[in-house]
Amino acid sequence: MLVIKIGGGAAIGEGGYANFAADLAALNRPTVVVHGGNAEFSRLSRELGMPPRIVTSASGRITRYTDAATIDVMLMAYAGKVNKRLVATLQAAGVNAVGLSAIDGRIARGRRKPVLRGTEDGKPKVLRDDHAGTLEGIEPRLIQLLLDAGYLPVLTPPALGEEGVPINVDGDKLALELAVALGADGLLFFSDTPGLLADRADETSLIREIDASAPEAALAAAAGRMTVKVEAALGAIARGVGQVVFADGRADRPVQRALAGEGTVVRASAGTAPAAAGRSGETAPLEPRG
Amino acid sequence: MLVIKIGGGAAIGEGGYANFAADLAALNRPTVVVHGGNAEFSRLSRELGMPPRIVTSASGRITRYTDAATIDVMLMAYAGKVNKRLVATLQAAGVNAVGLSAIDGRIARGRRKPVLRGTEDGKPKVLRDDHAGTLEGIEPRLIQLLLDAGYLPVLTPPALGEEGVPINVDGDKLALELAVALGADGLLFFSDTPGLLADRADETSLIREIDASAPEAALAAAAGRMTVKVEAALGAIARGVGQVVFADGRADRPVQRALAGEGTVVRASAGTAPAAAGRSGETAPLEPRG
Repeated sequence: MLVIKIGGGAAIGEGGYANFAADLAALNRPTVVVHGGNAEFSRLSRELGMPPRIVTSASGRITRYTDAATIDVMLMAYAGKVNKRLVATLQAAGVNAVGLSAIDGRIARGRRKPVLRGTEDGKPKVLRDDHAGTLEGIEPRLIQLLLDAGYLPVLTPPALGEEGVPINVDGDKLALELAVALGADGLLFFSDTPGLLADRADETSLIREIDASAPEAALAAAAGRMTVKVEAALGAIARGVGQVVFADGRADRPVQRALAGEGTVVRASAGTAPAAAGRSGETAPLEPRG
Repeated sequence: MLVIKIGGGAAIGEGGYANFAADLAALNRPTVVVHGGNAEFSRLSRELGMPPRIVTSASGRITRYTDAATIDVMLMAYAGKVNKRLVATLQAAGVNAVGLSAIDGRIARGRRKPVLRGTEDGKPKVLRDDHAGTLEGIEPRLIQLLLDAGYLPVLTPPALGEEGVPINVDGDKLALELAVALGADGLLFFSDTPGLLADRADETSLIREIDASAPEAALAAAAGRMTVKVEAALGAIARGVGQVVFADGRADRPVQRALAGEGTVVRASAGTAPAAAGRSGETAPLEPRG
């Protein structure tokens, strides 16, 4: 079982995901797609006069401030346009895809952190009513039901918060937690770069391998949003997902290439046995995270 | 098994669908919700500088012109905001809802009628590249799978057209065809009126009953968009759905009230035995329609 995360960068969706659709139609393996939608989200926000507000935490983490009105824009971009366009493209290629948000069937629950502290445009800020949060639990029963019936689930944030409030959660972490909960043997992260780059401005500076037992150099190279991706990859290896690859979502046959090792392959060190992957129809409480 | 259609008028969604959520949580009966999103669709279209273009056919039918860009707005409003807000509200009430568009799992296939003829603002028009169309087939397998597993499916247009093009189909017809394909014994249409009104400006002019064998007076009263609703109701009765009611979506306990006969009840005449309702896991080809 394979979980693939398709990033929300502008360059990936440009071809209408046709490269993924053709590839997944040829791939004879149960697969779950998790996708982002950040480029669409930002574009729609701007069109609606609500430009993205980006906050950098003291530790350098980059977060998008998401108030209640912004969550509606997120729902429209991620769960409306990107999710359904991707599903329609897969259907046209003969893949019986089913698009879901993590709200549906309580696939992922999240906990709001309503106060966001950090700097915005270089100025210190305390922003209230944030609807971003952390993942608290995964309930893979619906996804497993669809896989067992031969469907390809296509999943997107947001997650379900308390009292029915949608929560903006990180799509890479969602893919990680789903992969662990489903006992996936592979987790592929696609974005609009060839993989993890030593120099972000230079696509030829691909890091071909990350040793999960000594990830310091890779974490140092992974500035900004890539930090979350590298941490998710390391978490996946530590929790028993056998194969984790960062790969190019713009390529032809992107899934087949990544499975063949094109991109950045994250490996457990030879001396470390991975923990057994969990698999359960019940809600899996997640480890607390920083 | 019950199919309920919740209209997309502004007044229904105002309370966040909390009335439906509480009612469905108390109702111990397998149910599918089909919803519209017209008010959100129009609002978002205006905000994006693409105000709705309404075309009236020679026979008086009112259609919204939907080009490719407008379909994206429809996906955002219907499948993004309205669908997921409704699902989140149901989840908060303890109902394990799963939101889907009719594209997902090929639930409904549609055929485009790319040329739209009629009058717009009183002027004759021939508009090309329309993405509205008619329903061509229902595949209820995914909905049945979810019902059997205890989920409440929440379904919205658009449907799946050829080559992965989303098709704007009528939500009332979608509810009708799904009710027939699933062998539903009840079909309830909720909108922001008490039912079918003899005088649309007067909420006390409720028509309490329509005799399906003599619907002429009801069809005459049902101007504009209500015509499609009345035709769908008559079709449902003719094809074996036992109970069809037009009811008020703004009320407390709207489903329980409608099941008790509040609203406009559509009845088969005493002398006419309804045809047996179909029920099949296979694709049901639909009757041709005008």
